[in-house]
Amino acid sequence: MPELPTTPRGTATSRRILDAATEEFADRGIAGARIDRIIAAARTNKAQLYGYFGSKDSLFDAVIADCIGRSTRDVPFDAEDLAGWAVSLYDENLRSPDLVRLLAWARLERRPAGFILSNFDPQPKIAALARVQAAGRLRPGDPLSLLTLVVGMASAWSPATGVYVATVDEPAAEHDRRRALLRDCVQRAVAP
Amino acid sequence: MPELPTTPRGTATSRRILDAATEEFADRGIAGARIDRIIAAARTNKAQLYGYFGSKDSLFDAVIADCIGRSTRDVPFDAEDLAGWAVSLYDENLRSPDLVRLLAWARLERRPAGFILSNFDPQPKIAALARVQAAGRLRPGDPLSLLTLVVGMASAWSPATGVYVATVDEPAAEHDRRRALLRDCVQRAVAP
Repeated sequence: MPELPTTPRGTATSRRILDAATEEFADRGIAGARIDRIIAAARTNKAQLYGYFGSKDSLFDAVIADCIGRSTRDVPFDAEDLAGWAVSLYDENLRSPDLVRLLAWARLERRPAGFILSNFDPQPKIAALARVQAAGRLRPGDPLSLLTLVVGMASAWSPATGVYVATVDEPAAEHDRRRALLRDCVQRAVAP
Repeated sequence: MPELPTTPRGTATSRRILDAATEEFADRGIAGARIDRIIAAARTNKAQLYGYFGSKDSLFDAVIADCIGRSTRDVPFDAEDLAGWAVSLYDENLRSPDLVRLLAWARLERRPAGFILSNFDPQPKIAALARVQAAGRLRPGDPLSLLTLVVGMASAWSPATGVYVATVDEPAAEHDRRRALLRDCVQRAVAP
């Protein structure tokens, strides 16, 4: 069984492993990732990595959980302002393209249908949407479908899209135009 | 240089290779695909495959071109009815999940930013959208951004999404609910 680090030095090593693994998995996926490259980048060894994380697959799970945790903190869900939340997701994908790439690898390599993660639980977001719907401030209908559609809109320029991926090196005015379009279209779409 | 088949038997072999390669690449990506599995499934040999398609990479390009050609025939672009086009894309992804998976592998393994294909040319769609905008039947603004956003909406339940992938084995009523939501939200979003 993997064991969490119990010393500051162990915590720092575990963090370096997560950071190196995030980059390696985002770049090459689960099958393509090499543990040797991760331990070299994290300045540690295989025994330490497997001691903390168990296996390549559970290291990938830990990386996804770590990135989702950060994204949830950076972009808290707001059922009262789905348009603003969508724009924040657009910006988060510009700042941190890793999470979307990690999820896309998980989709392709692990779960071709249904929800993307075995432990994905949309209930808190669904309950929040249902409350705003009940108050008449959001279009009625299945809240999960509404959530899925808004995420689709926010992800239109994401690092996994089939059309065009937005990046930080584009002109600021271009991003502003997309943000304005996204905000207005989500507002129109979800209006009661 | 690869050479196209010149006999009916050669054409049939080339078609079997494309079909087998579509399944193999959609399932495992470019790096993960195995030419041995493709020639076994297509009942041919490596010399024949490389004779027709040149290399693994150019076989992947041929598979993408073949799938895009079929999708373009099945779901012709309609700038006058973006909502109907979006619903047709939803249905196409249900029928043929391969194309979206192939594009997602291309995105992850080949082109992390910008347009997804080196030969992707949005100009015909953009020109069609600009004409409908000029006639006042579509919201003004950059047509490429509008196109990207509508594809994002149509792809919300696609085989590469980070939330939930729709599949043919779900109840028909569920698909109908999503189609109605998608149609109405695209209509609202792109209205003048």
